[in-house]
Amino acid sequence: SNRDKLIGGLLIPGFDEGSCLSRYQSSLYRRISTHRPSPYLISKLREYEALHRRCGPHTKPYDEAVEQLRSGSSVSLTECKYVVWMSYSGLGNKILTLASAFLYAVLTDRVLLVDPGKDMADLFCEPFPEKTWLLPNDFPLMDQFSNFNQKSPNCHGYMLKTNTLNESTEALPSYLYLHLVHDYDDHDKLFFCDQEQALLSRVPWLILKTDNYFVPSLFLIPSFEHELSNLFPQKDNVFHHLGRYLFHPSNHVWGLITRYYDAYLSSADELIGIQVRVFEIGSGPFEHIMDQILSCTLQEKILPGVDKEGFSSVSLERPRMKAVLMTSLSSGYYEKLRTLYWEYPTTTGEVIAVHQPSYEMYQQTEKKAHNRKAWAEMYLLSMSDLLVTSAWSTFGYVAQGLGGSKPWILYKAENMSTPNPACRRAMSMEPCFHAPPFYDCKAKKGIDTGVVVPHVRHCEDMSWGLKLVHHQDL
Amino acid sequence: SNRDKLIGGLLIPGFDEGSCLSRYQSSLYRRISTHRPSPYLISKLREYEALHRRCGPHTKPYDEAVEQLRSGSSVSLTECKYVVWMSYSGLGNKILTLASAFLYAVLTDRVLLVDPGKDMADLFCEPFPEKTWLLPNDFPLMDQFSNFNQKSPNCHGYMLKTNTLNESTEALPSYLYLHLVHDYDDHDKLFFCDQEQALLSRVPWLILKTDNYFVPSLFLIPSFEHELSNLFPQKDNVFHHLGRYLFHPSNHVWGLITRYYDAYLSSADELIGIQVRVFEIGSGPFEHIMDQILSCTLQEKILPGVDKEGFSSVSLERPRMKAVLMTSLSSGYYEKLRTLYWEYPTTTGEVIAVHQPSYEMYQQTEKKAHNRKAWAEMYLLSMSDLLVTSAWSTFGYVAQGLGGSKPWILYKAENMSTPNPACRRAMSMEPCFHAPPFYDCKAKKGIDTGVVVPHVRHCEDMSWGLKLVHHQDL
Ligand SMILES: Nc1nc2c(ncn2[C@@H]2O[C@H](COP(=O)(O)OP(=O)(O)O)[C@@H](O)[C@H]2O)c(=O)[nH]1
Ligand SMILES: Nc1nc2c(ncn2[C@@H]2O[C@H](COP(=O)(O)OP(=O)(O)O)[C@@H](O)[C@H]2O)c(=O)[nH]1
Repeated sequence: SNRDKLIGGLLIPGFDEGSCLSRYQSSLYRRISTHRPSPYLISKLREYEALHRRCGPHTKPYDEAVEQLRSGSSVSLTECKYVVWMSYSGLGNKILTLASAFLYAVLTDRVLLVDPGKDMADLFCEPFPEKTWLLPNDFPLMDQFSNFNQKSPNCHGYMLKTNTLNESTEALPSYLYLHLVHDYDDHDKLFFCDQEQALLSRVPWLILKTDNYFVPSLFLIPSFEHELSNLFPQKDNVFHHLGRYLFHPSNHVWGLITRYYDAYLSSADELIGIQVRVFEIGSGPFEHIMDQILSCTLQEKILPGVDKEGFSSVSLERPRMKAVLMTSLSSGYYEKLRTLYWEYPTTTGEVIAVHQPSYEMYQQTEKKAHNRKAWAEMYLLSMSDLLVTSAWSTFGYVAQGLGGSKPWILYKAENMSTPNPACRRAMSMEPCFHAPPFYDCKAKKGIDTGVVVPHVRHCEDMSWGLKLVHHQDL
Repeated sequence: SNRDKLIGGLLIPGFDEGSCLSRYQSSLYRRISTHRPSPYLISKLREYEALHRRCGPHTKPYDEAVEQLRSGSSVSLTECKYVVWMSYSGLGNKILTLASAFLYAVLTDRVLLVDPGKDMADLFCEPFPEKTWLLPNDFPLMDQFSNFNQKSPNCHGYMLKTNTLNESTEALPSYLYLHLVHDYDDHDKLFFCDQEQALLSRVPWLILKTDNYFVPSLFLIPSFEHELSNLFPQKDNVFHHLGRYLFHPSNHVWGLITRYYDAYLSSADELIGIQVRVFEIGSGPFEHIMDQILSCTLQEKILPGVDKEGFSSVSLERPRMKAVLMTSLSSGYYEKLRTLYWEYPTTTGEVIAVHQPSYEMYQQTEKKAHNRKAWAEMYLLSMSDLLVTSAWSTFGYVAQGLGGSKPWILYKAENMSTPNPACRRAMSMEPCFHAPPFYDCKAKKGIDTGVVVPHVRHCEDMSWGLKLVHHQDL
C-alpha cells in the first residue's frame, strides 16, 4: 500500500524510481515500523525540503552565500545558512553524524550539505527532492577540509579559547569550523550551550567534523527543547525516523541487500541478527568472545540449545527455521556457530541456518566495494526480528536504529574474558553518544548530564555515554 | 508411499527404524529414482539376505569356516564361503570397492564381511537383516590385515607368479589374499580370468584389498556375463542400485544430511551440485580451476551469467531460486562463486544461493568427524537436480551414482591451465574403473578391454579407465 511505500509519511512521492530503487521498495523487505513519526516531524521535513529546494547547490541564494564566503568576513546576513557535514570516520559513525547534522540543520533552519568524500554518492541516494545534498566540487573550502583541526583559525572552540571571536555581526567570520570529534576540548564543547548557539546562528557557514551521535545533548539545550519534544514526543526514535528518511541505499547497495535477502534469508520463519564487533588486539577468533555469543543467545533464549548426545529427529512436518545473520570482520565466530548447529540437533527441533555475507578481515574505509558491503550488512541486520549487537559499535547502532528494535548488547569484554552477564537488553533503540559534554552552561560548572532529564540517560554499553530513552519504557 | 520408502523394492520392511533413520527416510529427501531395479536383482538380493542370515558372523557355518581358517589348509569345502573386504583408501574409494565386493559376493555365492576399520560402523547402518556385515573383532587374520601386500605368502597373484598355488583341493589354502590395488601386477590381474575364478571358487576365504571400482571388468568375465545381464539389463545402473541398497548413513551422518538440507537447501527451486576435487600440488584456490568451473557452468547453462553493468532488478514476484551446493577441501571456489552472485545480478533474474558445508583443508582419512562430513557431503550432492563433478574423483562418482544422474565432468587440468572444453556430460552415471586389466585371458595377450563389448567403454575422464554404459544412450 502507498502508506508503507512512503514509510508512514516520512517520504514524499514523485522521485524517479529507477535511479533509487530502494526508496520505494524498502517496504517490500522491511516490516512496517511500529513507531509512527509525529505529524509535526512530517511537516518539518516538508518545510526542510522546501528550504533545500530554495537554497540548495547552484541556486541564487547558494551562489550568494558562496560568494560571501570567498570574499571573507560576513558583512551581511545571507538569505540561506548552511551546515556542511565533513566526511569522517567509519561508515557507522558517518551515518550517525549525518543524522545528527541533519537534525541540527532542521533545528537551526540551515541547509545540510554533504562532503561527498570518497563514496557518499556511491552508497546513498539523494534524500531531498530536486536539489542535491552533495556539496559541489567547486566549493571554496573543499581543499582545506583535510587540514581543519582544533587549532584552525576558524575553529569555533579555538577562537573561544584565544578570545578572538568578536560578537559584533560585522566582525563575525563567514564560516566557522565545528570540531566535535571525540578528542574535542572544553571550548569545543561550548557548542552545546545556548549562548554559543545564539552566536552560531549568525554565521552563514558552519563546517562540521564529528564522529559522534550528538543528538542526546541537543535535547539538553534549552532553546531546542520545545521543538525537539514536538518533533519526537516519544524521544527514543529520533535516529529511527531520521535514518529511514535520509539513508536510502544506492542501487548498487540495494542489489547487495535484496540479492542476499532473497538467496539466503527470505525462507526463514524468523531472522536473528548477530553483529560481532571485536575491539581486542589481534585477529581472533577469540574463545571468550565465542563463549559470550553463545552464553547471551542461549540464556536470553534467542537461539535454542543443542543436544550433543542426540541424533537427528526428522519429523514429517516442515520444521521451524531460524536464520542467523552474522556480521563480523572475521569468519571465525560464524563458522563455529554454523558448525555447532550442523553437527548437533537443537533441543527444540528448530532448524538453525547461519549466514555471514562477508568477512573482510580488517576495516578498509577507503574502498568502495568494502563500504558497500558494510552498508548492505547494516541494512540486512536492520531487517532482523531479533538483534544482538556489540557494545561500543556504531555499526550496530545503525542496524538497531533503522530496524527500530531494542537489541541485546554484548558487553565489552575486559581482560580477554567473557563478561557475566554476557549481554543485556537495550533500554531503547537509540544510538549512544560516546563523548558527551559534562557541563552546566548556566552554572558554568561540571555536572552529570546523564541525570538531568529522564529521557537522557547513560548508555548500557558505555557508562559515560548518553542516550535517549522513552522513559515510560523503563 | 511404501513403494518409495523401500526404494522400488530394493529394501525390505521390518528393520528397526530408530537405529537407522536414513533407511526408510531417504525417500523423504530424495526424488524417486527413474531407474527401476530388475525383478531379478530384487530376488537375488533376497537370496543374498537369506545367505547372510544363514552364514553371517557367529552362525554355525561361520564358526566352522573360521575354525578351518585357524587350522590351516582347506581340507574340505566349508558350508559357506566368504569375501572379506578390507578397509582401505579414501571414503569415496571405500564405498565403490565395497559395492564391487558385494556384487562379487552375489555372483559367487559368498558372504560379504566388512573390516570395520576406524569408522565403518560410525558411518553406515547395517544393510542386511539380523546378522551384521561387520567382521567380528576376533577374526583370526584381523591383526595381519595391515601387513598384507603383493608379496604375502597367501597373495593370489604372488602364488601364481611363484607357481605355489597347487590346484588340488586338498592343497588349496583356506584363504587367499586378493591384491586389487591400483599398483597390482599382471599376476594379480589374472583375478579377472575365468580360469582363476574357477580356482578361487574353491577357497573358503577371500580377503580383498582394493581401491578400485572393478565392476566393469566383471562384465568381461564370460562366466559372469549371463547373470550380470539378468541382474542389470540396463547395465549403467549397477552402482546406483547396489549403492542405494547398501549404504544407509548412520544416524549421526543422517543428522548432518537432514539438518544441512533443511537449513540451507530445502527452499530452493533447483539444486545444483558442484564437486570440486583438485589434484594440483599446493593449496589453491587456483585461478585456472575457478575459470574452469565458471566456463563449464555457464557454457552448459547450468548457472546463469551475471550482468556486471546491471543493477538490482527487484521484481514483485518471488524470483526463481537456485541453490548451489559446492563441496571442496578448500573454501576458495565457493567464496568466489558466492561473491560473484552476491555482487552482480543474473541475466535471467534468477537468484543464486551458494553453499558449502565444510572446508576441511586436507584429507584426514583417520578422523571420524571428518569422514562423517565427507559422507554427508557425497549424499547431499547426490540429492542435486544437476551435478558437476571433478575428473578422477571417486567422491564424485559416489554422488552421481547414488543420485542416479549423468554429471558434467570437469576435465582434469594439465599444466595449470583451464581445459577447453572445460567439461563434458558423462555417458552414464556409473563410476570409472581406474586401473583395469588389458588382457585377453583366452588368447593370453594384451587387448584393449574398452572395445570388446558395447556396454564397457573407456571413461570420459580417464582414457585408460573402463566404465559401464547403457549403449542405447550413446
Ligand atoms: N562488512 C563489514 N564491515 C565491517 C564490520 N564491522 C566493521 N566493519 C568495517 O569497519 C568499519 C567500522 O566503523 P564503523 O562503521 O564506524 O563502526 P564501529 O567502529 O563499530 O563504530 C565499518 O564501516 C566497516 O568498514 C562487519 O561486520 N562487516
Ligand atoms: N568433506 C569433504 N572431504 C573431502 C572432499 N574432497 C575430498 N575430501 C576428503 O578426501 C577424501 C578423498 O578420498 P576419496 O573419497 O576416496 O575421493 P577421491 O580421492 O576424490 O577419489 C575424502 O574421503 C574426504 O576425506 C570434499 O569435498 N569434502
